Amino acid sequence: MSSRIQHPGLAQKIMSASDAAALIPAGATVGMSGFTGSGHPKLVPQALAQRIAAEHAAGKPFQVNVWTGASTAPELDGALAKVGGMHQRLPFQSDPLCRNKINAGELHYLDIHLSHVAQQAWFGFLGRMDVAVVEVLGILPDGRLIPSAAVGNNKTWLDIADKVILEVNSLPPKEMEGMHDIYYGTAIPPRRQPIHLTQPIERIGEPYLRVDPNKVIAVVETHHGDRDTAFARPDAVSNQIAAHIIDFLAHEVKLGRLPKAMLPLQSGVGNVANAVLAGLLDGPFEDLLGFTEVLQDGMLELIKRGKMAAASATAISLSREALKDFTDNIDFYRQRIVLRPQEISNHPELVRRLGVIAMNAMIEADIYGNVNSTHIMGSGMMNGIGGSGDYARNGYLSFFVTPSVAKGGDVSCIVPMVSHVDHTEHDTQIIVTEQGLADLRGLSPRQRAQVIIDKCAHPDWRPMLQDYFDRARRQGAQHTPHLLSEALSWHQRCLETGSMRATEDELAAVA
Amino acid sequence: MSSRIQHPGLAQKIMSASDAAALIPAGATVGMSGFTGSGHPKLVPQALAQRIAAEHAAGKPFQVNVWTGASTAPELDGALAKVGGMHQRLPFQSDPLCRNKINAGELHYLDIHLSHVAQQAWFGFLGRMDVAVVEVLGILPDGRLIPSAAVGNNKTWLDIADKVILEVNSLPPKEMEGMHDIYYGTAIPPRRQPIHLTQPIERIGEPYLRVDPNKVIAVVETHHGDRDTAFARPDAVSNQIAAHIIDFLAHEVKLGRLPKAMLPLQSGVGNVANAVLAGLLDGPFEDLLGFTEVLQDGMLELIKRGKMAAASATAISLSREALKDFTDNIDFYRQRIVLRPQEISNHPELVRRLGVIAMNAMIEADIYGNVNSTHIMGSGMMNGIGGSGDYARNGYLSFFVTPSVAKGGDVSCIVPMVSHVDHTEHDTQIIVTEQGLADLRGLSPRQRAQVIIDKCAHPDWRPMLQDYFDRARRQGAQHTPHLLSEALSWHQRCLETGSMRATEDELAAVA
Repeated sequence: MSSRIQHPGLAQKIMSASDAAALIPAGATVGMSGFTGSGHPKLVPQALAQRIAAEHAAGKPFQVNVWTGASTAPELDGALAKVGGMHQRLPFQSDPLCRNKINAGELHYLDIHLSHVAQQAWFGFLGRMDVAVVEVLGILPDGRLIPSAAVGNNKTWLDIADKVILEVNSLPPKEMEGMHDIYYGTAIPPRRQPIHLTQPIERIGEPYLRVDPNKVIAVVETHHGDRDTAFARPDAVSNQIAAHIIDFLAHEVKLGRLPKAMLPLQSGVGNVANAVLAGLLDGPFEDLLGFTEVLQDGMLELIKRGKMAAASATAISLSREALKDFTDNIDFYRQRIVLRPQEISNHPELVRRLGVIAMNAMIEADIYGNVNSTHIMGSGMMNGIGGSGDYARNGYLSFFVTPSVAKGGDVSCIVPMVSHVDHTEHDTQIIVTEQGLADLRGLSPRQRAQVIIDKCAHPDWRPMLQDYFDRARRQGAQHTPHLLSEALSWHQRCLETGSMRATEDELAAVA
Repeated sequence: MSSRIQHPGLAQKIMSASDAAALIPAGATVGMSGFTGSGHPKLVPQALAQRIAAEHAAGKPFQVNVWTGASTAPELDGALAKVGGMHQRLPFQSDPLCRNKINAGELHYLDIHLSHVAQQAWFGFLGRMDVAVVEVLGILPDGRLIPSAAVGNNKTWLDIADKVILEVNSLPPKEMEGMHDIYYGTAIPPRRQPIHLTQPIERIGEPYLRVDPNKVIAVVETHHGDRDTAFARPDAVSNQIAAHIIDFLAHEVKLGRLPKAMLPLQSGVGNVANAVLAGLLDGPFEDLLGFTEVLQDGMLELIKRGKMAAASATAISLSREALKDFTDNIDFYRQRIVLRPQEISNHPELVRRLGVIAMNAMIEADIYGNVNSTHIMGSGMMNGIGGSGDYARNGYLSFFVTPSVAKGGDVSCIVPMVSHVDHTEHDTQIIVTEQGLADLRGLSPRQRAQVIIDKCAHPDWRPMLQDYFDRARRQGAQHTPHLLSEALSWHQRCLETGSMRATEDELAAVA
């Protein structure tokens, strides 16, 4: 018996990935582990994809619905998308092949707030779950499970699935045991109780996942690494954005609107988030705390260097280099990091109570402060909303960040009207680009527009935005002045020409 | 000394409304009581408006910022808007004169989620509050205050304002004493604690508002009724919408996705809400509970008839007829109604924990489930978002309702793309018109579109919507198929012609 599988009954269910995949029926709804490229099952999804390809080659239809924690990796979303094996997918994803299927209209993608997924599954709103495929780091003699680098929705999938397949991965350090805090106090209304968490790294649950051994139909042994989430050095634009944010936070502390140790930080993924965290390494703040979804290299470094006292997340997603540091110093990090179900890491009750400072990337913002985090030119899905809505709506402060332009300057990320709204004007507070920071708190839409144009727009696009705003202010209702016939014309032009820029002819026609 | 003003020190501060209004300086930020036409100060705002008019006549500038609980009445918003006396107004409003000022670009209106207002004020994000003008029903010998028919933000305004003016209204029954539950356990992060409310009418606070008597600069005696919020008999369209909702709820109970006594009901204002509540009078549900913002005639009737056991709200807003019943039977109702600060009635933590069933009116929805609750044709403000976002995002079930057409059929309330987004596709679950009910749970955008077109659109508009959707599905990315050059053309046409209908010429040009 492998030392990672200590339950005798479950050890008897060890089989190959393809034998396990053969137990998943066509049409099944499968709950998989995985959050931001970590903690996903490594072998069963690939074996399932092979089986699906073979069935398709034989002319037989075979698709499954796949529910995860968030994005996974090529071995899961990529492999299943490649063979056209998914009918429905939820929630966040970021795989190129999966995205292509979604935007080709061949895959139904449900973009749900990460804090809502588990409860909607419990409520029965999404249908039944047939099989859960969950990666764990070990099985205790009594059948309890050591969670992996991502907790995600695993607690819920193990609870609600009819059958369970476990992948036991022996590569990640077994010393992660004890790092997790699995809360079993959730319930369905009207039986819900307060969640008694008042500090980011307080423990309110237990370190193991529970599973009914009788539901387990297969155990698959693996020894595979998570996705290597490469950590890019922040570029100049990211550093400028980060500097604006850090200046602003210091100013808020000075005005007494933030405590000296700030409030717990949530940081989305990507270059700008990394740059902000890197900036905090040299910033004036001490004893920081994290309350976030994904703990990446930047936050790990803050902990390592003693600037951040501790952090709560639902997943750890690291570069190869950082993973080595994490593994080498696992005892140090285990005392400073708590991994929770995403339902808890993103819970509105807790995000509001703790007063999280949220920092999330976006695709574009409009002059009135509406934010698009998900769609390219109104129709195409990028990755999904993730937890940005959980944090932006409920946090103490919320930043949405983007470079002011994209595609080498052909696209302005500040537009008259966003082509899709993920965060409404009621939910956005602070918009930041490398050009500057627009503090929208306490401003009316017309006031916001002038501040966003002045502070955030790229100088190349500022005159066009000002022109739009000025002309809109000369006609129609004036709460949120718009010219509806032009509001989305920048995006339409980009679809037609690859650039939002007007041609000489168009400019002449307007003049 | 009036029997309603039992604190000797405060009794000495009794003065006329105009003397009190004279204590409010130009440029002040004034926090006023008032929520949905009840509990607003009746005399001081009018006296202030007279003073402002006189100053303006003398060529002197004079405006104030006005923060309330929600909408008020002609004596407050109307009087101040009429004389151009407001520079800034937040949050919800519904006064015609006030709306005109907003849409003329002469009044900066901040449309904030009702659950966010108090905390943003506490955080210092909105600036300082100079004066609070709060209606109460009486002053105890120790200076504590008997709240009025609306609690709203009064607790916060009394706490944070530099100075306080009290209007003591002797018209509402003094026997409302004891009906309120003022929670003093809120705090600023990082000192926040769980809010220990697990049943809608549990009491977690105290029945009185506190005020520092030294801050009180004036006490004004009034004897005036609240706004008579006329209760319209539901019309045929409202009854059809209500029938769809009640059928759906009964179906959910049957499927085991709702308990037999359902879950606490939140009901927005308006005809459809009244119709749903009227429908519940004869429906199969017993022992209902309410957890809502405003308790109106419909919910009072449910309580009276024993169908609803009890209700929590932040305000009571009744027709003259219902007010008489409420007053005549105040002892009965005091045991079954709890009035709370709006920060608690709308709190995300509580709305999610209790599993509220939310029903709110909207202006329009698009085929992908985005909802516009606030704007007319993209630019003009109607009333504001109110608490609809608090309930829709955090509730167990959320309905958005509207007749399928407006303006005698010239406007479709189901459109290709909404002209403003208040509730995103991530937050909406069930869309209802008199035509039918679209259950969007677990559907991708393309699936949602077909269901909304089939179930909710008016037959006159269904072919045009289907045509838009079909053509959008033949080009571009297919997650949320849109034709950006046409997406807002229905609204643009309506602005130009008063109707969304295409002219014969336009149809010919397309054909």
